[in-house]
Amino acid sequence: MREITLADLDDIARGAAILGTGGGGDPHIGRLLAASALRRHGPVRLCPLEELPADASVLPVAMMGAPTVMVEKLPVTDQVAVAAEALAGYLGRELTHIACAEAGGVNSLIPVVAAAQLGLPLVDADGMGRAFPEIQMVLPTLYGVRATPMAIADEKGNRAVLDTVDNHWAERLARSATIDMGCSAMISSYAMTGAQAAESLVPGTLSLCAELGALVRQARAGHADPVDAVVARLGGRRLFGGKVVDVERRTVTGFARGTATLSGTDGDTGGELVLRFQNEYLVAEVDGAVQACVPDLICTLDRETGDAVTTESLRFGQRVTVISAPCDPRWHTPEGLALAGPRYFGYDLDPVGAGR
Amino acid sequence: MREITLADLDDIARGAAILGTGGGGDPHIGRLLAASALRRHGPVRLCPLEELPADASVLPVAMMGAPTVMVEKLPVTDQVAVAAEALAGYLGRELTHIACAEAGGVNSLIPVVAAAQLGLPLVDADGMGRAFPEIQMVLPTLYGVRATPMAIADEKGNRAVLDTVDNHWAERLARSATIDMGCSAMISSYAMTGAQAAESLVPGTLSLCAELGALVRQARAGHADPVDAVVARLGGRRLFGGKVVDVERRTVTGFARGTATLSGTDGDTGGELVLRFQNEYLVAEVDGAVQACVPDLICTLDRETGDAVTTESLRFGQRVTVISAPCDPRWHTPEGLALAGPRYFGYDLDPVGAGR
Repeated sequence: MREITLADLDDIARGAAILGTGGGGDPHIGRLLAASALRRHGPVRLCPLEELPADASVLPVAMMGAPTVMVEKLPVTDQVAVAAEALAGYLGRELTHIACAEAGGVNSLIPVVAAAQLGLPLVDADGMGRAFPEIQMVLPTLYGVRATPMAIADEKGNRAVLDTVDNHWAERLARSATIDMGCSAMISSYAMTGAQAAESLVPGTLSLCAELGALVRQARAGHADPVDAVVARLGGRRLFGGKVVDVERRTVTGFARGTATLSGTDGDTGGELVLRFQNEYLVAEVDGAVQACVPDLICTLDRETGDAVTTESLRFGQRVTVISAPCDPRWHTPEGLALAGPRYFGYDLDPVGAGR
Repeated sequence: MREITLADLDDIARGAAILGTGGGGDPHIGRLLAASALRRHGPVRLCPLEELPADASVLPVAMMGAPTVMVEKLPVTDQVAVAAEALAGYLGRELTHIACAEAGGVNSLIPVVAAAQLGLPLVDADGMGRAFPEIQMVLPTLYGVRATPMAIADEKGNRAVLDTVDNHWAERLARSATIDMGCSAMISSYAMTGAQAAESLVPGTLSLCAELGALVRQARAGHADPVDAVVARLGGRRLFGGKVVDVERRTVTGFARGTATLSGTDGDTGGELVLRFQNEYLVAEVDGAVQACVPDLICTLDRETGDAVTTESLRFGQRVTVISAPCDPRWHTPEGLALAGPRYFGYDLDPVGAGR
């Protein structure tokens, strides 16, 4: 894929929502925002990570906040570009490429919007290979790339540039600003060179999103099981099939936190699954035993359509299949686990293998 | 007074704390910070408001936060200049003058520190003629001067530049950042031209601080009543003389809020005084009747020394005299009262006259 056109958006949004592991935003909204931008500005060029010049000036953009709010409070048209331009102005240098901070139904598409509006190519990569809830949780943190200076902008016209002593402080100040701004805001962060991007980003994420989306679409058209196609492509495994019987969800400290309980309908995968989430699915317990946890991917898919079910769209009665899939191996290093392993999130667990 | 030297600091800090109406920071800390800066950089030139060139680039600086915290968590040496320079960099223009946002034991001296460090003259004026707890509560707001772009910096090295749609949003975002930064931070805000400063600031505030401080010092030396000297100079009146018998104080949403109860010892001023405060003294009730309230000044003075008693230093057993004094008349316009009148603070009161 060398460019992103209107025709690609359905597949990208669908695939991105799967990699979003419950977070990263609603794919329908992501698709609408990107479609509007592509209609106005034309297709977006996609730059493979390996072709990125070492001296490129790369800026990842994303939407930050609680997904429960992001589905109700939509960004305004130019908010994405405002966050990017505010940062470029502060840095005093011209941007050459837009990048994607995380995979997700909105956060894989927001960079498409920014690239279209700014007329810049988009790097085919992302900062996680999945979605995570906090700003410092990107692989570039492991490579010493600083989250700040970062810009944050809301739909009312408020904006801020933050410059912090480390990436945890960036998360802290940006989270408070996001809460003030109404629990969702647009950010541009982790400005980096092409060389830094090449070593720290996960290559091919947008292509993978498009591929996953196409696999699901084709399986449906051919009356095959779309979940099988996703599991096979990601090298993952089925954890559980069942019905959502309880969702406890609250929006606290700017996040959508909670648990969901599923009752088994596939006889072979156990009686009850509990999913714990903070924007993203973090831990999956089947009959009390942890079967998967961060940093590996836990994806909840509609059992008929294969579409991702985000944490904010979980509701009683949904029939879903929960799968796990391995994350980028750098997340399993000691530094990666310190940043986004189960213990960071307060679960006293060793990481559980996610592959087959 | 054409320059501020080490010898002036005691008087300025003492007088500023009186105008600070309980807030604006502890004068001992303000004096220490300014003395350290003057020892290193020499005296600070004072520019009368009427001599300020119309095209001057004026930047007010201040410390923001809960006074209860500001007495424990001191700013680091260069934090003041960092906030000013971060903003100058964002604005892309050279500063010509530093200004004072509010009168207060710290906030009249922080601009002295900034002016000394940056080698710039200080405008002899301030934005209120007193202290108020929130960012938008300055006379420049009434003249359409924008609080943002503003910079905020903590002692750890974190900084942010905020750019908001109005001055209330500036307060909201800056307050959250201040809370994250540990309830005290350095800000630079309301960057303005000399022409804007000339029409919107209160002239002569630093000279008035020095004069008030000298009056108190001289009264003490001459065994006269320093409170009389202050009341006479400010055109105010004595409200109450008594002993602090109860202080209820809490640090919430980044402010020092609470009430103090005083028991009368002067037979002629009533039995009980209740002072309500949010960083500053807002309302004074004698035997249940409101005798003074914002926007006029309520100053609590040690009855022996005449030194201001700030809200965070109030404690059981202190013998004090509480006085009121008229504020700048612009605070009594409908716009001024909407910004900092009693109803803004949640008291269903009409403003009470403060003069004799």
